[in-house]
Amino acid sequence: MKHVPHVVVGAPWEGPSLNLSVVQARHLSKVLRMSRGDKVTYTDGLGTVGKGVLGQHVIERGDEEQVGRATRLSVVTAPPANKDRQRFLVEKLAELGVERLMWLDTRHGKNRVASEFKIFSWVLAATEQSRGAWLMEVVPDLVTLDDLEPGWVVCERGGERSTPDTDTVVIGPEGGFADNELPEDALRWDLGPTLLRVETAAIAAVAKLAAR
Amino acid sequence: MKHVPHVVVGAPWEGPSLNLSVVQARHLSKVLRMSRGDKVTYTDGLGTVGKGVLGQHVIERGDEEQVGRATRLSVVTAPPANKDRQRFLVEKLAELGVERLMWLDTRHGKNRVASEFKIFSWVLAATEQSRGAWLMEVVPDLVTLDDLEPGWVVCERGGERSTPDTDTVVIGPEGGFADNELPEDALRWDLGPTLLRVETAAIAAVAKLAAR
Repeated sequence: MKHVPHVVVGAPWEGPSLNLSVVQARHLSKVLRMSRGDKVTYTDGLGTVGKGVLGQHVIERGDEEQVGRATRLSVVTAPPANKDRQRFLVEKLAELGVERLMWLDTRHGKNRVASEFKIFSWVLAATEQSRGAWLMEVVPDLVTLDDLEPGWVVCERGGERSTPDTDTVVIGPEGGFADNELPEDALRWDLGPTLLRVETAAIAAVAKLAAR
Repeated sequence: MKHVPHVVVGAPWEGPSLNLSVVQARHLSKVLRMSRGDKVTYTDGLGTVGKGVLGQHVIERGDEEQVGRATRLSVVTAPPANKDRQRFLVEKLAELGVERLMWLDTRHGKNRVASEFKIFSWVLAATEQSRGAWLMEVVPDLVTLDDLEPGWVVCERGGERSTPDTDTVVIGPEGGFADNELPEDALRWDLGPTLLRVETAAIAAVAKLAAR
């Protein structure tokens, strides 16, 4: 079975063909060694996916359909300390179909994140690789707990053991929250007996919430 | 709060102090800038953890206790295609407290894994970082499905959606299993609507199984 590549082409889509970027066209022809007429799938990252064929720097559109989101989850996390781990986190959450990622500003956290462009390129690559129909939104500016809508749950040891009913999960920095940084009435969720890095906690939380 | 480092020191432990390796002693003194008398925790990777203090190239032992395993899970997975992803997978599974990792030999998989020494060093680092009491076992030789004890469940699209009652989860290669490679009566578990990379599937499966 020949591998059929999946590419993200931004909306709006008009006419019978979609323009590929120079980078996409080169990747398909030089790296994947595809020729005109080879099959390709495509998405606008907003739920539409189609099956088409490669043309000259374009995709010739074919059957298209609308696909629902895998989850409606938002993840609000202190940034992992280094860029490799940030990349891994972004990729994995995009693969798992998370709707929105926000970076949390905390007193003990590192609070440095990769550039918006870099992060977007990670999301794009993960979406293409996992054949997704939705691009994960990553909010570029750091947020604080005060910015969040009520109903979020924070992963903290000593909290509830059962999977909570929430669509927004908060992961603190590896050093933990500062004294009084977490509101006393915050809903706390204990992910298990082992100490997890930020990115592991985020992935584990999403997997558990998506399993509800 | 000063960070208290956690180190793995192999059993058997005899006498009131435990020898540190040259690398460990140097890391504690040069990188973490610790001095004699500073607090340190330690484990044999077999469930015993202790609270001691740093001596001259040794740990002076203090209170010790026995800790149970977080899970009794085995993960049998096709190796991720590149070493970065293999490292992440090994680290994350070690953090999550997986008991044993085995690499699966498949017809469409890459079947190349990092050296046994390299993998052990990743497990060690993840165990120290996550303050674990148990070292994850990584079986060095590739295994086949025939080598497994009955009762394993394989992650496959189109399988059961509910979390299975198993202690051994199998993850196939990204290209999928070959025709007839999976026994017809294999128990299949569908992890969700999105296509996951090997390492993401393994972490998500473990998080879900551990949440039972």
